[in-house]
Amino acid sequence: MTPVPAGLVEAFWEYERALMADDVPTLDRLFADGPTTLRGDAHGLLVGHDQISAFRSSRGGAPQRRIVQTHVQAVDDDHALVIAVTELARGGRGQQTQMWVRTDEGWQVTAAHVSVPAPALDTRIWRVVGDPLVPPLGSGPLDGESVAVKDLYAVQGHRVGAGNPAWLAEARVEPVHARAVELLLEAGASVRGIARTDEFAYSLAGTNAHYGTPPNPKAPLRISGGSTSGSSSAVSLGQASIGLGTDTGGSIRVPAAYQGLFGIRTTHGAASTYALLPLSRSFDAVGWVTRSAELLQQVAEVVLPPTPRNPASDLVSVPGLLSIASDEVATVVDRYAAEHGAMRESWDLSELPGWLSAFQTLQAWEAWQERGAWVAPRLDELGADVRSRFEAAALIDDDRAAAARTVVDAARARIRELVGDRVLVLPSAATVAPLVGAGLDAVRAANMSLTCLAGLGGLPAVSVPRSTPQGLPVGVCLVAGPGRDRDLLQLAIDLD
Amino acid sequence: MTPVPAGLVEAFWEYERALMADDVPTLDRLFADGPTTLRGDAHGLLVGHDQISAFRSSRGGAPQRRIVQTHVQAVDDDHALVIAVTELARGGRGQQTQMWVRTDEGWQVTAAHVSVPAPALDTRIWRVVGDPLVPPLGSGPLDGESVAVKDLYAVQGHRVGAGNPAWLAEARVEPVHARAVELLLEAGASVRGIARTDEFAYSLAGTNAHYGTPPNPKAPLRISGGSTSGSSSAVSLGQASIGLGTDTGGSIRVPAAYQGLFGIRTTHGAASTYALLPLSRSFDAVGWVTRSAELLQQVAEVVLPPTPRNPASDLVSVPGLLSIASDEVATVVDRYAAEHGAMRESWDLSELPGWLSAFQTLQAWEAWQERGAWVAPRLDELGADVRSRFEAAALIDDDRAAAARTVVDAARARIRELVGDRVLVLPSAATVAPLVGAGLDAVRAANMSLTCLAGLGGLPAVSVPRSTPQGLPVGVCLVAGPGRDRDLLQLAIDLD
Repeated sequence: MTPVPAGLVEAFWEYERALMADDVPTLDRLFADGPTTLRGDAHGLLVGHDQISAFRSSRGGAPQRRIVQTHVQAVDDDHALVIAVTELARGGRGQQTQMWVRTDEGWQVTAAHVSVPAPALDTRIWRVVGDPLVPPLGSGPLDGESVAVKDLYAVQGHRVGAGNPAWLAEARVEPVHARAVELLLEAGASVRGIARTDEFAYSLAGTNAHYGTPPNPKAPLRISGGSTSGSSSAVSLGQASIGLGTDTGGSIRVPAAYQGLFGIRTTHGAASTYALLPLSRSFDAVGWVTRSAELLQQVAEVVLPPTPRNPASDLVSVPGLLSIASDEVATVVDRYAAEHGAMRESWDLSELPGWLSAFQTLQAWEAWQERGAWVAPRLDELGADVRSRFEAAALIDDDRAAAARTVVDAARARIRELVGDRVLVLPSAATVAPLVGAGLDAVRAANMSLTCLAGLGGLPAVSVPRSTPQGLPVGVCLVAGPGRDRDLLQLAIDLD
Repeated sequence: MTPVPAGLVEAFWEYERALMADDVPTLDRLFADGPTTLRGDAHGLLVGHDQISAFRSSRGGAPQRRIVQTHVQAVDDDHALVIAVTELARGGRGQQTQMWVRTDEGWQVTAAHVSVPAPALDTRIWRVVGDPLVPPLGSGPLDGESVAVKDLYAVQGHRVGAGNPAWLAEARVEPVHARAVELLLEAGASVRGIARTDEFAYSLAGTNAHYGTPPNPKAPLRISGGSTSGSSSAVSLGQASIGLGTDTGGSIRVPAAYQGLFGIRTTHGAASTYALLPLSRSFDAVGWVTRSAELLQQVAEVVLPPTPRNPASDLVSVPGLLSIASDEVATVVDRYAAEHGAMRESWDLSELPGWLSAFQTLQAWEAWQERGAWVAPRLDELGADVRSRFEAAALIDDDRAAAARTVVDAARARIRELVGDRVLVLPSAATVAPLVGAGLDAVRAANMSLTCLAGLGGLPAVSVPRSTPQGLPVGVCLVAGPGRDRDLLQLAIDLD
């Protein structure tokens, strides 16, 4: 064995002390500068000193631990691998593997890999999980599948939490399953658990102020998207195969896009919303995410009533919609459209801002009709983003709502006319998943400019996963006329 | 940057192909021979080629995955670190860090660190978990604590699964909490979840045939102990702070010993067994495990009725009992006894085999009275170990049971007389935790020769964690007269 190089042990312990003290400058100094330094854990691999430093500065310290074993594999006087077994103060053991290199700055880590014991459940993703939480009620095409149920659907024997602790505390135990849940159970699926949502589904971000932001495994350090946030992360991580959710203004399409999943927002009114907590009944639609186009389709066979099929569809792509998206997203969607022979067509989008405004106004007014009485005395119980939306919603009088409804009705007719019997190809979300902590107002506005089209039209929309050259997920959205959910699902399979 | 050494990339991919094909000989060849080769994951660090090879041979293949990123940090022509990001077929991303060294055998791995995404819940530990599963019913000394409830206690709104899927499938939804659960909730604790047990608590191993063996974080590759198996692993891992369980013949003491936890078996009859599924009412006792002696005591203040205290106690150690244990365990317990001034005393243990036999006979007869009607037509639904115990139990007639009870009664009186107002120091379990897959019959017999003393006596027993020089957990058991639970708990704190 090569002997342990001089100074290595001291550097190892200096690092350990700095970690326990959350001494970020020392930690930064003991990690090699430059773009090739690596640090990985269950949340993903950070590449480069800058990413690692940013992570350290924002995480508020590592869990307290002690070192119970160390193993040194020295290569030469200037290089050694150090493997340590850690014992966490909160329980359990972890492991840390570090590559140490002696540089002009002294001993520094060029790569670190850290494991700590998983919690009982990831409370950013789940409120409750089981093996299963609810067993199947029958056998059928979904045998063996497991469902992450968004915490807006009733699960018999459990409460509906709606992403808000105060709501949960007052909630009753549900006497029956929501119809969508029941249909999945009857088809052989089990319920794995009840998954987090943005509060009352009134967000596209997933950044729930009470429970945290669920992880996005394909885009570490980036948000999950929402409001079907927990269900989507659960499916991304393989903790469930079907993420049942809702889509009012993009709440399926955005997390599907951010996390590289297949997702469908069904035709408004096509799937039962029985025992589903509403946000805005004019737009709320049942939806789900999966990791495969085939399973996305299989769920539809269970959840949607039979409809005639009309698989032949021309694809159409609208440059004015692509231009709402970031360049990297637009490029991916444009290539998808071109590869599949979509026709480019210019639409008059001058009314889009007015349509979006009417959508948001009517959505807000309806949300206040549903939740205002409960929310009004409890604004302090809401996260800042959702609170501001409810505060704005409270100010919308019936006249403004009626005017918005007139615009919505006109927009619906016009959008259905524009789409016709074709399939519109557009971005599911305007950007790749934003970094955790980034401002989201502009992103939300851009997203909703795109997502409101299917929302206003009451149209089905399927999001198909693609990625940027850098490997970040991008969602390509396919939108068709009302009731053509199955055509879209078949198309997604055929084009994949 | 040092260039990527020749042959490294080929070796990396050869390893990856062999891993996906579960080609153990190739994997063995590509890991460096000898005692310093390392492989670690969430289950612990394996040290030496032999341990790693044994692990590979028994695990039935790695999860299918593809490599989505690789980073090479080359040291020189013969040494390089390779970090890979993996994408698992079942969902989620993982990471692998490998130290590669060129030897006479070609490129070989000398250290590997593997991370894969955690499941929604560890189904070896839990049947259902929540954030929390049940919120507190009050506020008190257990504010902020979380409980892993052994799946024998009623949790309102949930079923009792008793470690057996067929039992669970027929179980009703419990209308109320078990009294012990209710007391914890009223004192401010929440229920984190319902934890696995050996079937009907009729084992000391934790090797549930249906749900697998919960992990033992302080002793990787070794069994958890049982029957309070899931609760103990949950506490070891920090997934709960209190593991509520039962102890009939060692079901708290053995997992506490194997996993390095504090544990108490309370005086028989002292804590309420209301809405607790019984195994053998003559011996069943409420118990719990924790990571600290202080919390072990705090739970007692909530669960046990008030009793007078008599803290002063002489310790006594019996060489004939130590000799039942393995040398490494006996050494640790003997040192503990010596350090704390225990008096060595020889007991006439000639009756111990008869006492143990009477204990096991009465336990089995009672278990058959409780479960026989249900078990008899469902023997095929039981794991082999538990099945064989029930099959033997079915053959015990009332006369044998009555004779056993006579011996039990005499043993109880004699054991209480021997212990008197002192505290007996003995091993909580006869050996360190056996390796997963090892034969357990002899271990069970040795364990029960030790644990049956408190069982027969109806006496309280506290297990205190110590460890071997190699770092494996050993339990030191303190046994006192009936009702002296609080004295033992205080003693455990004072001596710690």
